[in-house]
Amino acid sequence: KIDGSRLWESLMEMAEIGPGVAGGNNRQTLTDADAEGRALFQSWCEAAGMTMGLDTMGNMFARREGTDPDALPVYVGSHLDTQPTGGKYDGVLGVLGGLEIVRSLNDLGIKTKHPIVVTNWTNEEGTRFAPAMLSSGVFAGMHAQDWAESREDAKGLKFGEELDRIGWRGDEPVGERKMHAFFELHIEQGPILEVEEKDVGVVTHGQGLSWTQVTVTGKESHTGSTPMPMRKNAGLGMARILELVEEIAWSHKPDAVGAAGHIDIYPNSRNVIPGKAVFTVDFRSPDLSVIKDMEERLDAGAKKICDDMGLQIELEKVGGFDPVEFDAQCVTAVRNAAERLGYSHRDIVSGAGHDACWINRVAPTAMVMCPCVDGLSHNEAEEISPEWAAAGANVLFHAVVETAEI
Amino acid sequence: KIDGSRLWESLMEMAEIGPGVAGGNNRQTLTDADAEGRALFQSWCEAAGMTMGLDTMGNMFARREGTDPDALPVYVGSHLDTQPTGGKYDGVLGVLGGLEIVRSLNDLGIKTKHPIVVTNWTNEEGTRFAPAMLSSGVFAGMHAQDWAESREDAKGLKFGEELDRIGWRGDEPVGERKMHAFFELHIEQGPILEVEEKDVGVVTHGQGLSWTQVTVTGKESHTGSTPMPMRKNAGLGMARILELVEEIAWSHKPDAVGAAGHIDIYPNSRNVIPGKAVFTVDFRSPDLSVIKDMEERLDAGAKKICDDMGLQIELEKVGGFDPVEFDAQCVTAVRNAAERLGYSHRDIVSGAGHDACWINRVAPTAMVMCPCVDGLSHNEAEEISPEWAAAGANVLFHAVVETAEI
Ligand SMILES: NC(=O)NCCC(=O)O
Ligand SMILES: NC(=O)NCCC(=O)O
Repeated sequence: KIDGSRLWESLMEMAEIGPGVAGGNNRQTLTDADAEGRALFQSWCEAAGMTMGLDTMGNMFARREGTDPDALPVYVGSHLDTQPTGGKYDGVLGVLGGLEIVRSLNDLGIKTKHPIVVTNWTNEEGTRFAPAMLSSGVFAGMHAQDWAESREDAKGLKFGEELDRIGWRGDEPVGERKMHAFFELHIEQGPILEVEEKDVGVVTHGQGLSWTQVTVTGKESHTGSTPMPMRKNAGLGMARILELVEEIAWSHKPDAVGAAGHIDIYPNSRNVIPGKAVFTVDFRSPDLSVIKDMEERLDAGAKKICDDMGLQIELEKVGGFDPVEFDAQCVTAVRNAAERLGYSHRDIVSGAGHDACWINRVAPTAMVMCPCVDGLSHNEAEEISPEWAAAGANVLFHAVVETAEI
Repeated sequence: KIDGSRLWESLMEMAEIGPGVAGGNNRQTLTDADAEGRALFQSWCEAAGMTMGLDTMGNMFARREGTDPDALPVYVGSHLDTQPTGGKYDGVLGVLGGLEIVRSLNDLGIKTKHPIVVTNWTNEEGTRFAPAMLSSGVFAGMHAQDWAESREDAKGLKFGEELDRIGWRGDEPVGERKMHAFFELHIEQGPILEVEEKDVGVVTHGQGLSWTQVTVTGKESHTGSTPMPMRKNAGLGMARILELVEEIAWSHKPDAVGAAGHIDIYPNSRNVIPGKAVFTVDFRSPDLSVIKDMEERLDAGAKKICDDMGLQIELEKVGGFDPVEFDAQCVTAVRNAAERLGYSHRDIVSGAGHDACWINRVAPTAMVMCPCVDGLSHNEAEEISPEWAAAGANVLFHAVVETAEI
């Protein structure tokens, strides 16, 4: 078994970097806080006897050697970046859980045949730079690296420039590593495991995602002296589209969700009818045909709303991935580990996107989930218990060690 | 008659300060650009032989002496601050029109019995610091100065601190000046005069305004893994309230308008259900009972929407004034001037708020309006013709000179 209190202490130490405003974290990707978090992780990896690889997207690869020089490594990890008002565990548990496996193997004096590589993927959250899971996506060949590096944050700063600025761009080409397998431990970020009192979720599938950035253009004018019939209110057009998004998601109940988390209004002045609204619609479903249907209905419905109001509209797909089925053998390794360790468990579909969803395209992949309080995530109040963290890390440990072979 | 081309040149010269991004202006109150615009105005006033007074709210008073030392001055003016994406005429025409009157009197060697004071009121627009017409409001005793100085912009900077920073706080106590009368020339900012091909609007009334800042609080959570029934989506609550605002305004057609120009969403991340939405509802009507009705229906309706969705809501009135009836004698002076000069004209109700709406409470007040292209204002594309500007300034000239007596 891994050392649960050491894991917990490391989680708490990492959470001191990039503190939030309400007990959580704001350690957004490619910020100074991100650089500090990376340096702490690197120092821990080196203390555990690992060597660090760094690719040109800033992805970190801490390697513990195996006994067979020809064996491909087993990879394990997640991400250290957070939401602007994020929790202490989303992503971090998967990286530090991977580190804890290596520390435990060191303690126990166990050597594996396959090397073990603990990974921190750059910009998983996608808040500063859309889309989410950007660098694991480049690794898996889903995005061109040039395109990824040109992604801009709200201030117009580019991913590539910010990566250089914080000093975490490596020399290694992205995506050339071959993997024997990849495992990711993550908090559920939803309510199922806690409600059903399961220690562990065996993730068999991940639901697919579609991000559509909508730009509604009206006409800026005076809120007082513009008669109602002459208005071209982009904010009102947006409001009607938000209602449509809700309606579309519910129509596929319980197999779909939809919302807009990002909304910007221009010029954002109390006495100016909004001339422009830019917002991103997030649709998800485990069923690809449902995602396609939602995208089509958004496209047609939003255009109709804008036509009727004399507004212009543009819809641009800024992120997404198809529903994922994880590797049967890796999933079995996770389920067997939970069983062997005596944890209550159930198969589960991931509601969120994860780096594992992209890596699954280039290597046999599976995920382990642990519950989180009230299913709450992407909130500074995100919470888990040390026992849940330890159970998840133990299952990860056994699945990884079985796959890496002793 | 005034010199229309000199007036136009001054308008164009002022428009070079704080240029916008699309041909208009961004010379928001208490910015460096505002300070630069003030300095230019002051230099023009001094060149025209006027002396500058400055009060502790930064209101500017350029005085041309009269022949009777006991006669109260006739005030004329408006504001030099603009919207973030504002036009070149909104406010500026009224200040530089006042200056043009003095320049013309100088040219013609005319002395008036009453002094003439050309005024630039601080923070008319209310974008950086709500409410609008802040400093004329303090002057008229409608707001406590302490409260006005404590108003914060979106970055948390305070009005009083920014006034000190740009170096335009005077020594003179606010509101001690007594006025014989106040006249304000302004562009209509609506479509009526242009559609009816009138040169001049004789403003008899101003419609009332109510600004309610609404804060809807839900719960930040993951857009992917939070099941639809568990969501507390503050953005969706806001969308429903925006639809309600539209419905309420139309129900009083044609005597009311309503919209929200200011909308902020938190944490504004693509994959986080909005935990908070803050927005300002702007309702207007020439009829006080209609404004009260709209406020009450917003209050009740928005609370019902939030109750039904499990959201919290707070409503705070952050600005407003009752409908205004301008002084009969001053209005007659404006109408007579238009008549005498042979301009086509009509009586009109101002759709927008103006400094004149507050000054009307402490002095006999009236307004002159000129048309603007497509009724468009609070837009960088705001446009007027030099002829319209000259006609408005001529009417202002005659009304002011008649009131100031030769
Ligand atoms: N796990 C997680 O929150 N990832 C961010 C990408 C997503 O929105 O699902
Ligand atoms: N004239 C003008 O645009 N004033 C700003 C105050 C208002 O919103 O009416």
